[in-house]
Amino acid sequence: MSSHAVSIVRQLMASEAYRTALATLSAQHDRTVEDIIALTQIPAPSFQEENRARAFLAMAEAHGLKNLEIDAEGNVTGLRPGIGNGPLICVAAHLDTVFPAGTDVTVRREGTRLFAPGVGDDTRSLAVLLAWLRAMDTAGVRTRADILFVADVGEEGPGDLRGMRHLFQQGPYKDRIGAFITVDSPDMDRIATGGVGSKRYRVTFKGPGGHSYGAFGLVNPMFAMADAIARLGRVAVPASPKTTYSASVTGGGTSINSIPNSVWTEFDLRSEAPGELAKLEATFLDLIDRSVAAENAARSTQNGPIGAEVLKIGDRPAGHTDETNDLVRLAHAAISAHGFQPGFAYSSTDANIPMSLGIPAIKIGSGGTGGRGHSLEEWIDVAPEPSVRGMAAGLATLLAVAGIG
Amino acid sequence: MSSHAVSIVRQLMASEAYRTALATLSAQHDRTVEDIIALTQIPAPSFQEENRARAFLAMAEAHGLKNLEIDAEGNVTGLRPGIGNGPLICVAAHLDTVFPAGTDVTVRREGTRLFAPGVGDDTRSLAVLLAWLRAMDTAGVRTRADILFVADVGEEGPGDLRGMRHLFQQGPYKDRIGAFITVDSPDMDRIATGGVGSKRYRVTFKGPGGHSYGAFGLVNPMFAMADAIARLGRVAVPASPKTTYSASVTGGGTSINSIPNSVWTEFDLRSEAPGELAKLEATFLDLIDRSVAAENAARSTQNGPIGAEVLKIGDRPAGHTDETNDLVRLAHAAISAHGFQPGFAYSSTDANIPMSLGIPAIKIGSGGTGGRGHSLEEWIDVAPEPSVRGMAAGLATLLAVAGIG
Repeated sequence: MSSHAVSIVRQLMASEAYRTALATLSAQHDRTVEDIIALTQIPAPSFQEENRARAFLAMAEAHGLKNLEIDAEGNVTGLRPGIGNGPLICVAAHLDTVFPAGTDVTVRREGTRLFAPGVGDDTRSLAVLLAWLRAMDTAGVRTRADILFVADVGEEGPGDLRGMRHLFQQGPYKDRIGAFITVDSPDMDRIATGGVGSKRYRVTFKGPGGHSYGAFGLVNPMFAMADAIARLGRVAVPASPKTTYSASVTGGGTSINSIPNSVWTEFDLRSEAPGELAKLEATFLDLIDRSVAAENAARSTQNGPIGAEVLKIGDRPAGHTDETNDLVRLAHAAISAHGFQPGFAYSSTDANIPMSLGIPAIKIGSGGTGGRGHSLEEWIDVAPEPSVRGMAAGLATLLAVAGIG
Repeated sequence: MSSHAVSIVRQLMASEAYRTALATLSAQHDRTVEDIIALTQIPAPSFQEENRARAFLAMAEAHGLKNLEIDAEGNVTGLRPGIGNGPLICVAAHLDTVFPAGTDVTVRREGTRLFAPGVGDDTRSLAVLLAWLRAMDTAGVRTRADILFVADVGEEGPGDLRGMRHLFQQGPYKDRIGAFITVDSPDMDRIATGGVGSKRYRVTFKGPGGHSYGAFGLVNPMFAMADAIARLGRVAVPASPKTTYSASVTGGGTSINSIPNSVWTEFDLRSEAPGELAKLEATFLDLIDRSVAAENAARSTQNGPIGAEVLKIGDRPAGHTDETNDLVRLAHAAISAHGFQPGFAYSSTDANIPMSLGIPAIKIGSGGTGGRGHSLEEWIDVAPEPSVRGMAAGLATLLAVAGIG
């Protein structure tokens, strides 16, 4: 641990400004919980974040952000001006959830637990950004660096990081951001310094189709697809560097009494290591070919064979921020100083984009606990003490990086 | 071949009435083709037959049918009164197609071929019923028996023969129908005297779900489902009695970066022989269990295991009309007398219901040729000579069974 970073954090935490901010986070915790519930109950599937973006913008309006607006891609951005000429620090949480339109996003509360799809990933973090703004306003905090607050679109699956790509490659702040912090999911015990790379495919298996009874014996693309998925399920991947795969979403077919013309599945392949990802991708593409060939050999192709259309629908760059970077050291010191024991980890988040561009970037947690992200049983715990302590650790990270006057 | 049946048909075909009817079918063939095109271009997925039913009813209105109406289930029914007290003869074609709403049903014409989903199965037959009515009207044919004309709903897959079940078990004509002829698809060379039995299932594989990367290693219902489908694809079934299976329609999943909570597939199992069907069904149910167990053994169940919900969504009774029955003998004689060489076959059609109730029933063709039923490349050929000859053979069947004065 860097003693320089530790001393900066110690000095920060001794300041009147930090103590007032912490007291505000604590005093206004119920309001933060209300914000979490309100935002969670606005559905925000990737590409349909607009209602939630407008709600977030309205909630942020009280905080005197400069140029608070929704950018061309749909991100909410607002600048909290600093007092000096430090680099622009960007802090973000993502608006979108993995859950399709129509999913029941009503929050169920049991004691200090909130249950709802998306409540922890990443809606809680949106409310935490608002809590930080209120705490900084109340404490009269003036940072040296300008801080760009972002509630961004397209972090999940099909969004393919479109919000971040726009921010860093096209929007008005491109080339100005010197450091990036994304707040994503509750866990405080892992600082993501690595961005897991991913390849995503939609594979459509096509064939001649026909009547399920009259044309029985013709090739059926469902059998080719099932064989491909089953083969993928038998692929061995290393636990370290962590490498994973999933067959995630599927569809297709004409009717129950038809051999389908077309069926499809979407696949997610990931690895911490570019080499392992490339190897898994090659294995995957090969097993698609083998499954198609096996079906064409197993049944009749007299009306035409099975074929597979392989479409790459996601390609997230891997990246890494060195653990000796000031951003990482200050985050580690600030989070440790709040009683957590953060380790370094890989994840696949908005931070992948700046990491891949060589801009220091990390992912930190939003505080409290939670689990079952990406499942319908997703939950968070908003018990005040660990929640406020987590939020304070995150705010201390931001203030240490931005510097206070 | 029954010489009695042959002589009845010979006498019929020598009559002025038959000859005028035949000349009318030939003279109005272009109109019949127009009717095929018009009806084909009205989408009619099972359970959404209403628009096509109303169009058919309007087209039938000119023909003086008694009690022409849409019944409580959605079938168009109309009675052509006879002159005597013969049994009620029912002739039917089905309104619905296997193609889901949104399928392009525009008819493409190339020479004498018409290409469109549903054009042959069974839209052409609807137009043939209208052509028969016009031919009988023009020829002034009076039959001994009353003839009930039916354009029925729910013949395909999920419809599960609901139109026929209503007609024979609940509607105003139940217990009155003495013989049943369904006109289904062009083929004249097969008279279906047997009804293939079928069992249809929707199987939903469920599991705990989770993040595709963070929760990698948990059981994934997609792997269980793929294994089940792949196992089904390896099941050996007899060519005779013909026994078949299909994995036909699939869906499910949360997002590309989630292990799905739930995925499903619909399966179609059929056999000419009740014993083989029962055996296939048992094998199928067993392989679902095995696939679920295999996935629960292959990956972690720490957040819960995979399970399968097995829902029976279709159960069509098998049945058979003896080849010595008058209905079969007259149909065979009439169709043979028009230059076809009809064999007896099994199929799964509206005739299954009366067959299973012990009511003599057959399926005959609508004439002409066609192919690729239940695929998007479905086609028929409307070249006049074979088309009119087929229609005439069907009409002769109907008149021979109903008797003419």
